[in-house]
Amino acid sequence: MLSEFDLIKRYFARHTKPDEHLALGIGDDCALLNITPGMQMAISSDMLVSGRHFFPDADPYLLGHKCLAVNLSDLAAMGAKPVGFTLAFSLPEANPAWLEKFSQGLFALADQHQCRLIGGDTTKGPLNICITIFGELPLSMALRRDAAQVGDDIWISGNLGDARLALAGYWRELELSPADQLQAATRMHQPTPRVALGIALRGIAHAALDISDGLVGDLGHILESSRVGASLAIDAMPAGPILQHFPPALRRQFTLSGGDDYELCFTAPAERRAEVVAAAASANTLVTRVGRIDAEPGLRFLDQHANPVCLSLQSFDHFTTP
Amino acid sequence: MLSEFDLIKRYFARHTKPDEHLALGIGDDCALLNITPGMQMAISSDMLVSGRHFFPDADPYLLGHKCLAVNLSDLAAMGAKPVGFTLAFSLPEANPAWLEKFSQGLFALADQHQCRLIGGDTTKGPLNICITIFGELPLSMALRRDAAQVGDDIWISGNLGDARLALAGYWRELELSPADQLQAATRMHQPTPRVALGIALRGIAHAALDISDGLVGDLGHILESSRVGASLAIDAMPAGPILQHFPPALRRQFTLSGGDDYELCFTAPAERRAEVVAAAASANTLVTRVGRIDAEPGLRFLDQHANPVCLSLQSFDHFTTP
Repeated sequence: MLSEFDLIKRYFARHTKPDEHLALGIGDDCALLNITPGMQMAISSDMLVSGRHFFPDADPYLLGHKCLAVNLSDLAAMGAKPVGFTLAFSLPEANPAWLEKFSQGLFALADQHQCRLIGGDTTKGPLNICITIFGELPLSMALRRDAAQVGDDIWISGNLGDARLALAGYWRELELSPADQLQAATRMHQPTPRVALGIALRGIAHAALDISDGLVGDLGHILESSRVGASLAIDAMPAGPILQHFPPALRRQFTLSGGDDYELCFTAPAERRAEVVAAAASANTLVTRVGRIDAEPGLRFLDQHANPVCLSLQSFDHFTTP
Repeated sequence: MLSEFDLIKRYFARHTKPDEHLALGIGDDCALLNITPGMQMAISSDMLVSGRHFFPDADPYLLGHKCLAVNLSDLAAMGAKPVGFTLAFSLPEANPAWLEKFSQGLFALADQHQCRLIGGDTTKGPLNICITIFGELPLSMALRRDAAQVGDDIWISGNLGDARLALAGYWRELELSPADQLQAATRMHQPTPRVALGIALRGIAHAALDISDGLVGDLGHILESSRVGASLAIDAMPAGPILQHFPPALRRQFTLSGGDDYELCFTAPAERRAEVVAAAASANTLVTRVGRIDAEPGLRFLDQHANPVCLSLQSFDHFTTP
């Protein structure tokens, strides 16, 4: 039986060499991190529970990717550069094959973003994975939820709805071809955190967040924090490559309230459209303009002819959604 | 039914006002933290699982205390000053009575140490509580595990073994009077993190850690990291007020390998004994000298006449201990 210390040593104790940020890595009571002078820290925690956020038999490589991706996405939404993360998890058993794949998926993404695993905790229990991530950004440059201004454009990175489509396939709400199911599922299991875009938008965008519970619900947080309203061009929503082939009603539903997209939704002054497009190009990321921030409170849906549309949508909540 | 947002707002969103450290608190994708210039960050994560680290029917007030106490103890063991923490947890249900008491226990200790709750995550699932804590300390002043030097004294804060005694009572390994059981259990449920002592020992102590899995196992980490050995005066161990009344063999066993003590074990040069005692007095904390760091590898037990004693002890491991 693998002990707790062997497990950490064998699969996770890679980032122990000091560098410009990491003064002391895994193996002491705390890790020690140096922050660049003039920068502040952005910090976020996400907990993923088996049977809730992922299937109990989820591919461990993809799970390793996703656990870190959702945290990197939070840094992206603030415009922060990743520095490091802690990993705390409970496992029913120390299964070497599972641990090896999980750590490979985790480190493949971590390395891509120079984000160091600096510490954590392992214990026995129902499968639960908690990552806390640390990034840095120049003082007063964060893309906050409360910074949207009347007249701002609303933008979306990438595309929406394919993750929700994969779920509909799993749940048998819809029949998908095996190839479509696989491609949509990849989107659900391997979200792409928009880190480069978040950094490129510093000083250009006003407000930003990442879309995890569905665009409408998440945009609502920007509207509430910024005390503004918005209009959304619901047929301008960038649907995922699989969802594009489905009827308009489903496209609307899944792009607006799908969830698990991990794209950025951000606002920027209309006069800075060219800068937004240039920032997105520099980050090699597609962006689409989908609406406008209004002074009138509430969220309005407009069709392609700018006529108001009435839609009933619900965002996901861990305690009230069945 | 309480929603996730209501739950956070009602019980946990206290620390949202910006101050000298907290630039942005709960409610955005990330919290933003300012670090004092010239300081580095100490970071630690602990995950507590129901049925593993605490009884499923544990008093939520005490549980709130303990979850944060074990993390503060990690900061103490580095000599770091607490700044803030994130709280991620999964709950089987959003029970208002439980949440209210849990948050009270948590914040009572947090306020005592000016340690802000800056963010986190809540989700549905088997009860699991993960705290990541952030402290700061001057560059190169951390009390690391790899810094023990031959000739150092070995010191222990407070006393050891009463938490293990409480467990023995619960498990019916021993018969304790109700009053003794209660007092010992308080020690198990409400450990006192030695934060002030850790800070006072900066520049005086060499190595330090906190004793969570039992002194012998934990001291072993200092010996291994520092590539040294040690001798322990096993009858000099400061036994807890209840354990003191039990036979010497049990006292030895529970002080040396009890676990859940959350006292500091630290090493300091023999010529600085007076400074150690003064630092402990300034932190209002008892310290006891219990051994010496040797060049010879391994750990030796000595009785009160300095004769070698053979003892068989085992430290706790989450995956190999049944």
